Amino acid sequence: MSEEKRTDLESLGEFGTIDLLTKNFLITRESTAFGIGDDAAVLERNEEQYTLVSTDMLVEGVHFNLMYVPFKHLGYKSVAVNVSDIAAMNGTPEQITVSIAVSNRFPLEALEELYDGIRLACQHYKVDLVGGDTTSSRSGLVISVTAIGVVDKSKVVYRSGAGTNDLLVVSGDLGAAYVGLQVLEREKSVFQANPDIQPDLDGKDYIIQRQLKPEARMDVIAYLKELEVVPTSMIDVSDGLASEILHLCKSSKKGAMVYNAKLPIDSLTSTTALDFNLDPVTCVLNGGEDYELLFTVSQNDFDKIKGNPHMTIIGYMTDASDGIYLVDKNESLIPLSAQGWDHFQQ
Amino acid sequence: MSEEKRTDLESLGEFGTIDLLTKNFLITRESTAFGIGDDAAVLERNEEQYTLVSTDMLVEGVHFNLMYVPFKHLGYKSVAVNVSDIAAMNGTPEQITVSIAVSNRFPLEALEELYDGIRLACQHYKVDLVGGDTTSSRSGLVISVTAIGVVDKSKVVYRSGAGTNDLLVVSGDLGAAYVGLQVLEREKSVFQANPDIQPDLDGKDYIIQRQLKPEARMDVIAYLKELEVVPTSMIDVSDGLASEILHLCKSSKKGAMVYNAKLPIDSLTSTTALDFNLDPVTCVLNGGEDYELLFTVSQNDFDKIKGNPHMTIIGYMTDASDGIYLVDKNESLIPLSAQGWDHFQQ
Repeated sequence: MSEEKRTDLESLGEFGTIDLLTKNFLITRESTAFGIGDDAAVLERNEEQYTLVSTDMLVEGVHFNLMYVPFKHLGYKSVAVNVSDIAAMNGTPEQITVSIAVSNRFPLEALEELYDGIRLACQHYKVDLVGGDTTSSRSGLVISVTAIGVVDKSKVVYRSGAGTNDLLVVSGDLGAAYVGLQVLEREKSVFQANPDIQPDLDGKDYIIQRQLKPEARMDVIAYLKELEVVPTSMIDVSDGLASEILHLCKSSKKGAMVYNAKLPIDSLTSTTALDFNLDPVTCVLNGGEDYELLFTVSQNDFDKIKGNPHMTIIGYMTDASDGIYLVDKNESLIPLSAQGWDHFQQ
Repeated sequence: MSEEKRTDLESLGEFGTIDLLTKNFLITRESTAFGIGDDAAVLERNEEQYTLVSTDMLVEGVHFNLMYVPFKHLGYKSVAVNVSDIAAMNGTPEQITVSIAVSNRFPLEALEELYDGIRLACQHYKVDLVGGDTTSSRSGLVISVTAIGVVDKSKVVYRSGAGTNDLLVVSGDLGAAYVGLQVLEREKSVFQANPDIQPDLDGKDYIIQRQLKPEARMDVIAYLKELEVVPTSMIDVSDGLASEILHLCKSSKKGAMVYNAKLPIDSLTSTTALDFNLDPVTCVLNGGEDYELLFTVSQNDFDKIKGNPHMTIIGYMTDASDGIYLVDKNESLIPLSAQGWDHFQQ
């Protein structure tokens, strides 16, 4: 390695780093239908179906803090976040592999709790654990999960398929996981200052659960199937809504108009955000880890999804030249920019 | 987690830990043909073929030491070891995903070297990089690679298919990677004592290359295909020959008779081992990271493989009740036991 040039990873951010490192890789296999750049890779399987492959790595001290994340929840979450990526392709997860690097400071019983959580998630999402690797680590805990799924070729949904005037839809509500994290962080600080004080999490169950035990929205994939709606594009909301909207727009070469007033925010999320002097809309746009699905549907499907309690229409797609804007309550247009989670910049 | 019980991971070892953690997981998907317990998982793909999935995690300070492992070699090796697992199923690798956790202390240029090595390996083994994750780490570098491959259903080879009297065969030569590691460790110690002394690696190229840049034996898979030999069982030699023989015997419910004098050892491996006061046979049996293939073939295939320069017959399989023995030069029978690599016990 040359000693002359040193470019800080922080200056590039996570996505910039991945783009730079992978730009010189070519696709040479006929069985690779789609490689890097969506929620999962898309591989040839048979005449009717594709195989989907997605992988995520969770690192202690970066993605989770063992001070307030129980091992069981961590195991569950590590599966759920990968299942969410398969969901975002409109697919069904079937198998996972789990590799962990773990320090000897953890007893076997801690790993058993972790795997209890993994097993619960496997049962809930109907996936088989088919492999993995367990190795020691000189320091923290690292969990790497790969999910393998299947999707009908006629039903696969990429980030790139949104059309102008398509409706922009999000499942569930947003911002809760981020505000839940603020509560946990506050209680950690209180505990560190005085270990005799018990954490005050009363009435915060919903947002804490959203942080500690997120669910992949496989139910939404099932609803869409029932409704006979195939989204034109889709992504899961892992890094904050703003970042995901920008991804969809970039991949689809479109612009978007998003209505502030339409953003689905649970009332507990709002009131707790305000307690922390945080703007709830900022939590939605720039918080992370909601694991909801953001997708676009043709205007023709409006009747099928309007009023559905699991989905909210938050805007529509425009031509790329029209830009990407948030419409605030005064009907002002605010250019949307991503300030989502970026682990290199924390 | 209960505070009452603490079982040390060290006391269980790596395989014991995996067995314990995964024993309660059930296979529920029809598309899972074979889950945990071989070199790769075997998944339904179409009428003629299976998909193979294998995953490995490499951890700084455990699997590699950046003091003497160049980033480019590390990238290459992280792909090769996964390709080797696909080879061990008699399959062909087609895609990989690569996730890395990396500290900000590494500059982008180091990661570029790592990915240069990954790209070289992708070209050499004809696999596509189709996904991954790049995240920060609070401490060392962690690399997790998942390889996806394909195999004809009629050609898939498990660890469990060996028959009594089948020939036990190994590709290439053994022990070189372990002895190469001893050379690198010695030079590291010399360097730490006096940084002005340049490493003395003269004439050790072969064994150092075997440690730093192991190759998956896809060429052996091709030879077997040419020879129209389908092994009855197979495993890759990542943890030392003794450990791998025990795996084959356990999965196939057989015993084995292995001839000390037949073990393929390169002369540089032998002489260097002796310089370190190491028994070359011990390096073969208990050293690791050779990434050769160990397999069994029917006696009917003897004529096809005898004298093949890439394969050595080292013994034969027996009934389980006959035990697993090494026959030494005095024709004494020594029970074979595994003392291979175990990262929890280092």
